[in-house]
Amino acid sequence: MPAPLFLRACRGEVTERAPIWVMRQAGRYLPEYRRVRAGVSFLELCKTPKLAAEVTLQPIQRFGFDAAILFSDLLVPLEAMGLEVQFTEQGPRLPEPVRAPADLRRVGRFDAASKTGFVMETIRVLRGQLGDTPLIGFAGAPFTVATYAIEGRTAKSFTETKGFFYRHPVEARQLLGLIAEATRDYLRAQVRAGAQAIQIFDSWVGVVSADDWESFVLPPTAALVSEVRAAGVPVIYFANGATTIFERIARVGADVYGVDWRLPIDEARARLGVPAAVQGNLDPSVLLGPASEIQRRATEIVRRGGKRGHVFNLGHGIYPETPVESVEALVAAVRAA
Amino acid sequence: MPAPLFLRACRGEVTERAPIWVMRQAGRYLPEYRRVRAGVSFLELCKTPKLAAEVTLQPIQRFGFDAAILFSDLLVPLEAMGLEVQFTEQGPRLPEPVRAPADLRRVGRFDAASKTGFVMETIRVLRGQLGDTPLIGFAGAPFTVATYAIEGRTAKSFTETKGFFYRHPVEARQLLGLIAEATRDYLRAQVRAGAQAIQIFDSWVGVVSADDWESFVLPPTAALVSEVRAAGVPVIYFANGATTIFERIARVGADVYGVDWRLPIDEARARLGVPAAVQGNLDPSVLLGPASEIQRRATEIVRRGGKRGHVFNLGHGIYPETPVESVEALVAAVRAA
Repeated sequence: MPAPLFLRACRGEVTERAPIWVMRQAGRYLPEYRRVRAGVSFLELCKTPKLAAEVTLQPIQRFGFDAAILFSDLLVPLEAMGLEVQFTEQGPRLPEPVRAPADLRRVGRFDAASKTGFVMETIRVLRGQLGDTPLIGFAGAPFTVATYAIEGRTAKSFTETKGFFYRHPVEARQLLGLIAEATRDYLRAQVRAGAQAIQIFDSWVGVVSADDWESFVLPPTAALVSEVRAAGVPVIYFANGATTIFERIARVGADVYGVDWRLPIDEARARLGVPAAVQGNLDPSVLLGPASEIQRRATEIVRRGGKRGHVFNLGHGIYPETPVESVEALVAAVRAA
Repeated sequence: MPAPLFLRACRGEVTERAPIWVMRQAGRYLPEYRRVRAGVSFLELCKTPKLAAEVTLQPIQRFGFDAAILFSDLLVPLEAMGLEVQFTEQGPRLPEPVRAPADLRRVGRFDAASKTGFVMETIRVLRGQLGDTPLIGFAGAPFTVATYAIEGRTAKSFTETKGFFYRHPVEARQLLGLIAEATRDYLRAQVRAGAQAIQIFDSWVGVVSADDWESFVLPPTAALVSEVRAAGVPVIYFANGATTIFERIARVGADVYGVDWRLPIDEARARLGVPAAVQGNLDPSVLLGPASEIQRRATEIVRRGGKRGHVFNLGHGIYPETPVESVEALVAAVRAA
């Protein structure tokens, strides 16, 4: 039996059609997700393997996506490193963020087995239920996780993070290194539990300059990617908002590069300059428009993405207000293209 | 007497040193600004020529910047087009945004003379006080102003704007065209009043795809730039967050392109592919770091910017928490480079 379509595309192979999944496919746009979520807090949902597995499966059952992605949160490993994380209506809050070099003492070693066992259990439950559909594990990239550690919330201008980098470059690299190590252990545990591919989300990397990316972000990120690939699974690096620096980004060494919607996917691939696979790049706002527009744009991306090493996806997480019918139209368009 | 340094650089000439000004130089980081602002609301400050001129002059007097920029707000012309704008602690709010094609009827013709006379008076006062320092007038670009009209606030994901574009492309272009025409009249009035250069801020254009930029944003923006240039002043187009599409952006036809901090200024210039001037590109967060780092990075930008057609600036507005000493260090570094 051939490997699943999604995994073959991740490996850069030519596939008979582009596999499709969408970021945040297990989410609030789905009525069945909202029903589960109505009964529990977000954190309870993440930490209850039976429920996390249930919502992970929902979009697979409804749309037949070509990959499932673990339902969890970017900040789970940060909590497991000893930093308190609260999930509020306004988003995540860290009551005691890392603001000075001395705060690094509070950032502990990471113990994947004892602190994130619920994630591994979710993965095991899912592998028992997913059949042939591959499961993607994930984590935040070191820079993106560091912004939460330093800002204590989803930042707007990232001045705390950058201020810390410029004032304390040694300790900033130390913090990024600690997060990268913890994330490595976390992701290797996910692979041992059954994750068949890993996506690393660098959600906020678009806010750093090319020079800062090379100097601060690249080394710990490349180390992490290399160490996770050594566990035998393909690694997708999604550098959101970073097509500006795509000429540099292949130095991360990933198998697949996520492409947001800002640049056409063939141009983004050309900028990479290496024969890696690409994943993206429909603007999720298109799903708020008419079906004809969804079809036109999805078909264009399939054409531009080409047959080799192309995973269809949105360029960002699906918006909660997206009509389910739009996702149906999208899946049909990609399958028919 | 030669033309002022800043204007020569805008015209693409070789200059003896890079002129410097910084975006939001009249702002909250200055104690003398906070003193004026303590007594009046933001809107009163914008609408009182004596006070608006006073805060415009403050950074010129303190730092000797090579250009002054009119103190005003991006939403002034929108209000003059008949849409109510409230300035709240949480930012601007439009109680009745443009959400459906029928709402276009509420977007009126713009009467610069009767509705924005306070801006023109501020410019006249300033020209009487500025001496040899050139004065930059400004407005928001059609797309950026349209996002406020449609979202009713500073957006996060711009789903209302893009949803409107995809559902109602004809009316979206109509709205962008109306804003471009109003902005043309507004900016020509500024030039008649004495503005010697114009900056067009496309603060949010970084959220659109390359295709949407070409299809929706480029035509009204290029028309606006061309019509303002016909008034005889150089036009600076600052497309924030858009170095990704800098290969396309010179089609706007500006004299100068603002460059945020994401790409080194020489790479951004190369992407433009035309011999236009460039302005930027220090990450304003650097001003939250030590003087040595400010000096190192500013010097590097002066070197990479080259001697021809280069205006030194930040890559974005200066942050309110910036120490005044950092700006002093910056000015000294650029002058000494």
